[in-house]
Amino acid sequence: MTYVSFAGAEKPLDFVAIGRLCIDLNANEIHRPMEETMTFTKYVGGSPANITIGMSRLGLNTAFIGKIANDQMGRFIADYLRRNNIATTNVVNDTTGAVTGLAFTEIKSPTDCSILMYRDNAADLLLTPSEVQESLIAQAKVLLISGTALAKSPSREAVFQALSYAKKHGAVIVFDLDYRPYTWTSAEETAVYYNLAAEKCDIILGTREEFDMMERFEDNPDHSDHITASKWFDYSAKIVIIKHGKDGSIAYTQDGVGHRAKSFPARVVKTFGAGDSYAAGFLYGVMQGWKLEKSMEFGSAAACIVISSHSCSDAMPTADQVHDYIERCNRGEITAS
Amino acid sequence: MTYVSFAGAEKPLDFVAIGRLCIDLNANEIHRPMEETMTFTKYVGGSPANITIGMSRLGLNTAFIGKIANDQMGRFIADYLRRNNIATTNVVNDTTGAVTGLAFTEIKSPTDCSILMYRDNAADLLLTPSEVQESLIAQAKVLLISGTALAKSPSREAVFQALSYAKKHGAVIVFDLDYRPYTWTSAEETAVYYNLAAEKCDIILGTREEFDMMERFEDNPDHSDHITASKWFDYSAKIVIIKHGKDGSIAYTQDGVGHRAKSFPARVVKTFGAGDSYAAGFLYGVMQGWKLEKSMEFGSAAACIVISSHSCSDAMPTADQVHDYIERCNRGEITAS
Amino acid sequence: MTYVSFAGAEKPLDFVAIGRLCIDLNANEIHRPMEETMTFTKYVGGSPANITIGMSRLGLNTAFIGKIANDQMGRFIADYLRRNNIATTNVVNDTTGAVTGLAFTEIKSPTDCSILMYRDNAADLLLTPSEVQESLIAQAKVLLISGTALAKSPSREAVFQALSYAKKHGAVIVFDLDYRPYTWTSAEETAVYYNLAAEKCDIILGTREEFDMMERFEDNPDHSDHITASKWFDYSAKIVIIKHGKDGSIAYTQDGVGHRAKSFPARVVKTFGAGDSYAAGFLYGVMQGWKLEKSMEFGSAAACIVISSHSCSDAMPTADQVHDYIERCNRGEITAS
Amino acid sequence: MTYVSFAGAEKPLDFVAIGRLCIDLNANEIHRPMEETMTFTKYVGGSPANITIGMSRLGLNTAFIGKIANDQMGRFIADYLRRNNIATTNVVNDTTGAVTGLAFTEIKSPTDCSILMYRDNAADLLLTPSEVQESLIAQAKVLLISGTALAKSPSREAVFQALSYAKKHGAVIVFDLDYRPYTWTSAEETAVYYNLAAEKCDIILGTREEFDMMERFEDNPDHSDHITASKWFDYSAKIVIIKHGKDGSIAYTQDGVGHRAKSFPARVVKTFGAGDSYAAGFLYGVMQGWKLEKSMEFGSAAACIVISSHSCSDAMPTADQVHDYIERCNRGEITAS
Repeated sequence: MTYVSFAGAEKPLDFVAIGRLCIDLNANEIHRPMEETMTFTKYVGGSPANITIGMSRLGLNTAFIGKIANDQMGRFIADYLRRNNIATTNVVNDTTGAVTGLAFTEIKSPTDCSILMYRDNAADLLLTPSEVQESLIAQAKVLLISGTALAKSPSREAVFQALSYAKKHGAVIVFDLDYRPYTWTSAEETAVYYNLAAEKCDIILGTREEFDMMERFEDNPDHSDHITASKWFDYSAKIVIIKHGKDGSIAYTQDGVGHRAKSFPARVVKTFGAGDSYAAGFLYGVMQGWKLEKSMEFGSAAACIVISSHSCSDAMPTADQVHDYIERCNRGEITAS
Repeated sequence: MTYVSFAGAEKPLDFVAIGRLCIDLNANEIHRPMEETMTFTKYVGGSPANITIGMSRLGLNTAFIGKIANDQMGRFIADYLRRNNIATTNVVNDTTGAVTGLAFTEIKSPTDCSILMYRDNAADLLLTPSEVQESLIAQAKVLLISGTALAKSPSREAVFQALSYAKKHGAVIVFDLDYRPYTWTSAEETAVYYNLAAEKCDIILGTREEFDMMERFEDNPDHSDHITASKWFDYSAKIVIIKHGKDGSIAYTQDGVGHRAKSFPARVVKTFGAGDSYAAGFLYGVMQGWKLEKSMEFGSAAACIVISSHSCSDAMPTADQVHDYIERCNRGEITAS
Repeated sequence: MTYVSFAGAEKPLDFVAIGRLCIDLNANEIHRPMEETMTFTKYVGGSPANITIGMSRLGLNTAFIGKIANDQMGRFIADYLRRNNIATTNVVNDTTGAVTGLAFTEIKSPTDCSILMYRDNAADLLLTPSEVQESLIAQAKVLLISGTALAKSPSREAVFQALSYAKKHGAVIVFDLDYRPYTWTSAEETAVYYNLAAEKCDIILGTREEFDMMERFEDNPDHSDHITASKWFDYSAKIVIIKHGKDGSIAYTQDGVGHRAKSFPARVVKTFGAGDSYAAGFLYGVMQGWKLEKSMEFGSAAACIVISSHSCSDAMPTADQVHDYIERCNRGEITAS
Repeated sequence: MTYVSFAGAEKPLDFVAIGRLCIDLNANEIHRPMEETMTFTKYVGGSPANITIGMSRLGLNTAFIGKIANDQMGRFIADYLRRNNIATTNVVNDTTGAVTGLAFTEIKSPTDCSILMYRDNAADLLLTPSEVQESLIAQAKVLLISGTALAKSPSREAVFQALSYAKKHGAVIVFDLDYRPYTWTSAEETAVYYNLAAEKCDIILGTREEFDMMERFEDNPDHSDHITASKWFDYSAKIVIIKHGKDGSIAYTQDGVGHRAKSFPARVVKTFGAGDSYAAGFLYGVMQGWKLEKSMEFGSAAACIVISSHSCSDAMPTADQVHDYIERCNRGEITAS
């Protein structure tokens, strides 16, 4: 059964995302605290950027809506997007002296990873509603928004304006919750805007903890996935994916069904990037018209590839690589580390 | 025909408003520039406060949701509300050292009035979502929101949370646009939040200029009232009132009809408070089940009474006073100044 | 003995002050809490403004360095200064939308007075160093600075620049401590800047509590006036006046002497303005070449006149009025209320 | 001739500096724009930190007064200082969530170097006056302050408090101007505080451009070094060093003499760190009682060693290394790149 319908060839752009564009500085010497890391490698980062890079690698026609610092880091990001065939006509240059957000990663062990964030005066949060190009969204089958872009004005308003354009032009709207507490003023502020945005979205993806945060003013004492998903079907949602970490994800649909898919083994280097590659793989599948279970499997396999490598964005696989990974797993050639 | 239905006796509270509570300091020596005014008289002010006082004077059971400074001005406001039979259980005391917003009025002539505002660090804009009492809104037939309360966080989020509660409990939601540019960061920010709020409202009242501000990202080059009103009927609206100053107001309804009512003469002292008393009178009529035209007339007469006196809040009339004013106008006893 | 020497006729300006210009809104109905006060009368206020008005009333040639809001309140202030013969060539108009600081006074009894301050976004704190006219200070015998102007940037830097010009051109510098905690970020920040400024001043006036605040990082456990005064004689000070409220003031001089003067009875309406009128009267006496004791007496008598009336600025006496007050006291015609 | 006298063995600490502690991220792939640099190496940085490391390497007993972020970068800095024998008893941990300042270096060519700074919410600028330990300064022969620490409150006030303690306890005070425009609100604010601090200093080092900035409100149209230096001898200064880049430095002394020293060839990798190593070498020489010319030569040689290597802090030489460098230059073994 098809739960979501996408526009056809009349919309030339498969996928556009709005939000955070930043730099990951990944520790080269891993399995130690960052205090002892002496060198770092630079990658493009930020959840919606990673997903867009993933979608482009999978062969879709993509674009990005965001704002970059007017410095070497900003230019590196724009170059990288272009080299990955992502349209940057709506990637705006900041003129206020803002900086590029940074994420220094610390990989103590495959299961003990943390991030040191630089988000003060970040250029991506300075995108304004007027800078969002209605014409670009009008051409897109899918708009993806990411929760972090709701954290501050004027980026917050730019996202709501993008949602307004997407509704007007009939784009399928995907909300990747991507909740990062350090950018927000208060948990209650977060809950209010996440809910206002989610009301307008067709596909919502998040962890159980992220949905709990959104239910701050509601009554779901047992943290029931079913209650959580039901709420959104009263608004615009068609699919609600709730992730439970190692226990896997469940995709709820309007018919009340909870869909699960099998997972794959991986030789884990670090856990960063798992969610972004999963989102890219899953959405790719749904856009191909695959069954939800197959789409979820594809997302899981894409995630396995990313967490087995050093970077997030740069490790995003092609469709062939994902299919190949699944086959090798099915042949028993890959086992967990 | 009834365009809006209200809950019955199961909801004991007729009307609750959320937003600005402030102090008006009205020039005692009028018909001169404020530079030459030496003394001022203190009144409770703020558009939603004025409307609530108006509703209470008209005999309705009312309450207010807001935040007051922990000082003499704040205590004066709370006392005044209580003396006017307005429940203050959800009027919260600020604890951060914020001040009470002030509005010094300058009355150079009946048609040349201006306001000098003090809105920095105003307590009313510090109301948080957690402070909004769901139980109070659950008991109310009507929730009125006012645009000024959307101007800053956390008051902005408190209003959206109040809207969420009102939707959940089936209150009729009234949006008095009340756009005051000095509190807002940018016109585009304003447009985004006004639209997000208006989507959820049953009755929307504003001037043509206020609706123009909301249409910043839209296409209504001729400022057509009809196009403006139609948009909101696609969301939740039942009645959209567009005010054209001296040319009168038009109330649009979902059936496509534009309702007009006659106006009354007045011996104008100043124009302040006209909109607030109109809103109170009109909503009172609608809640009585009167026809729209009669409700609009009642609002106009209430406004005439207020603009003929020195204050806004303190001059709000009783129902008998409004009926009496209409009768005296009908008998030709009142003529314009 | 003469402790301070002033320039002669080659400097045409007797006195210039820099700092706060604001509005006092004095309760008309007194002897009650402000909650019950319904009307207020508007006066020019701010400690350095009051002192300058006092100096001008006493017959000196005066000017002011400050910044006013571009509104009715700002224009009222500039008009009032000009009408009181105070040169306003260096009273700058704000262009950022700042407001005029307000002080609502509450007079519960002659000894129980308080002030409700509005100091957010106050225009007077926006004076910049570049706006301070060196040529004006070059012509002045005396520069008076007031502690409140040190509370925020850029006014803080404007004061230090004014001090630099005064030092360069040989003006006698008077520091009226005038410490108002609500404008400051922290007590330790206050102490640092008060000390930096005081190092450059010839005459320092303050209460014991104000000097205690300045000694936050020092060792004066018994709050000894002698230790306090001695410190400043190692820098630039010639006279240090420490006020002990009802117990009177002591003027310390470099020779180690503590000078006291008798006080006068008064029919006290409120205590506001006592310090400002004392400062004006005292400085007037010192500039006349009077002995310190006589100057202090003159200041005390000027203060008695101000606290016996409703306003601060508007009640500043002429020299004849002060002399007359002293004579009437000496004849026993005035007794305390 | 000895221009500055230092305390003897009764003060166990030779040198303490206050101010910026940050991280340099130096491009590993150099001679290209930063956009094309993929990896960076982490070093401790910040001008006063570099100078202190330099002084410690030269064999002096040193300490630092500063504030570090409560994160991996902050802990790395504290560890590095301790490993370099710098006392960290007055290196305070931030508790507000501030971050460590970053400096990404771009080395396009030996003469075309630039820095990309992250200074928003930097922990070092949050040091408060109360956190400065008087007892530490009381034990120090020399206190070095650095202009960057004056850029923001409360670090600005902490520096003035440190100056107050240094004056009280007779430490020689060195001011390294180190002007970094990006941290400051305005050029006039900068000028005011640089001047206030410089009045209290015994040795002042800066570039001609830095002194020009300080003379914003003064009259030195020809940018005369002589006029510049003379001003400070009227306050506390004994030595004023004005640096003219490739044209060398001149050390002015109170007797009106301008001292110059010869320079040395170097195989330049980058120009960063030249000023810091010069300052360390020069101050070391002065503290040994060497003639000014010899001290300046020693500083120049130390600078040559640092600019010939990849880092600033980590490349600071020992005294033997500097002497050896001078000898090799004298033997003609080192020639410019």
